[in-house]
Amino acid sequence: MCELLALSANTPTDMRFSFRGLTRRGGATGEHADGWGLASFDPQSGGLRVIREESAAAFSPLAAQMAEHDLKALYSLAHIRKATQGVVTLANCHPFQRQWHGQDWVFAHNGDIKGTIPSGDPYSPIGNTDSEAAFCWILNTLNDGASPQLGRNILFDLLNRCSAHLAGQGIFNCLISNGQWLYAFGGTKLHVITRRAPFAQATLADDNVTVDFSAVTTENDVVTIVSTEPLTTNETWRPLESGESLLVVDGEIVASHTSAGAQDRGENPRSE
Amino acid sequence: MCELLALSANTPTDMRFSFRGLTRRGGATGEHADGWGLASFDPQSGGLRVIREESAAAFSPLAAQMAEHDLKALYSLAHIRKATQGVVTLANCHPFQRQWHGQDWVFAHNGDIKGTIPSGDPYSPIGNTDSEAAFCWILNTLNDGASPQLGRNILFDLLNRCSAHLAGQGIFNCLISNGQWLYAFGGTKLHVITRRAPFAQATLADDNVTVDFSAVTTENDVVTIVSTEPLTTNETWRPLESGESLLVVDGEIVASHTSAGAQDRGENPRSE
Repeated sequence: MCELLALSANTPTDMRFSFRGLTRRGGATGEHADGWGLASFDPQSGGLRVIREESAAAFSPLAAQMAEHDLKALYSLAHIRKATQGVVTLANCHPFQRQWHGQDWVFAHNGDIKGTIPSGDPYSPIGNTDSEAAFCWILNTLNDGASPQLGRNILFDLLNRCSAHLAGQGIFNCLISNGQWLYAFGGTKLHVITRRAPFAQATLADDNVTVDFSAVTTENDVVTIVSTEPLTTNETWRPLESGESLLVVDGEIVASHTSAGAQDRGENPRSE
Repeated sequence: MCELLALSANTPTDMRFSFRGLTRRGGATGEHADGWGLASFDPQSGGLRVIREESAAAFSPLAAQMAEHDLKALYSLAHIRKATQGVVTLANCHPFQRQWHGQDWVFAHNGDIKGTIPSGDPYSPIGNTDSEAAFCWILNTLNDGASPQLGRNILFDLLNRCSAHLAGQGIFNCLISNGQWLYAFGGTKLHVITRRAPFAQATLADDNVTVDFSAVTTENDVVTIVSTEPLTTNETWRPLESGESLLVVDGEIVASHTSAGAQDRGENPRSE
């Protein structure tokens, strides 16, 4: 399977520290060595930058450079891959991206969907992962049922319905962002932490690196990080409940929901 | 305006040498310092990698790394930007990418389109350049008139019609690829060279670098490079006629066409 990481902040913030920890798990401290990807939305223009590679993040010069790069964003999203469905190749690396009514959307998945994911129009996969098929299915479903101008609450509800459906067919944890919000669904495993003043020190679990957030923030900064596993050793990360979803805007969790569909997943032996 | 570069080859080939020359023009030997982008299709999976930055390529550590990276592809495409329409920001950096019926398409433009480009559905711009608007217009036009399974000749004809229309409204040189073919349209300025055995040495016009292609190729290799300006000093590049387009597959020019519409552009004072 894979590991997920995302950031939402109320001021442009780089994800270097967390991304550095995540990349260590891509072949060094973890077995997720089949590819990696990093997406960030430019805070000025909303433009999307996605860098993906079909190699181990822990040993990639490009990933190392991105872990040094001061890529400040309000929304960033990263993924390291351990292939379950689909071969090890660039087309199967997350995050996947599509345009939806003039917006760039990115999607990353951790899990294994055993059920059939219906194909549709206009969104169809390039690679052959269950993950990209799920993303296309979500977009086709939104396209059928939703106005391009749908409000945030309606969107959250629609995404929750899609996630509950997919979580009923296997293991489904996902992150989605369009640069204006971050959606996170934890079917089986996802952790969250919101950092705000007074900021303290944090030490990576996977590397000998400590950062003093108080030295690089102002007292008004709010940053929420969502990650498959806690990335630091001296902070308290909250595990999401099974089937819990979050909508994060400007670093704050503005909505959360626990999916009854996902709670039912215990009845399905394929789901754990 | 901007400069364009693309490669098509019959065996996975890296574009390092040409890209290195192009990036020098992004702020060092040329004034195209408002952004750069590099797209390449993974020859194994067809997956697309696009790296863009809103800074001068000549001084970018990321561009320097990509110029060293052995990124072998059958189709690669690059762009350096000097802004004419649209601010200097990531969302306005070429190449632009969209999915069309399960294929990744990339597009880069050199020019300045003065006429109004109609907006449409389902493709709409993220940034505010004439270039991205033109790309969306082309895709919406293809979507209206063409089957997803259209043959290569019909596609070439449709793209030529779109290019001729856009060239009639200003300056329009463009590159498009879906990883299976490269389309090039030279409204005002584009050069092409096809390299095949016997391979010789080539020296960059913008950097003190010489490569001996005979040492890095086999006798069956065929590589076509399309570029706004010739990138080497000791090879013969052919300038495209005004309004000429090329379709390049596996390194070979399989079709060329001179657009009557573009030839008429001399009557339009906006077009030069």
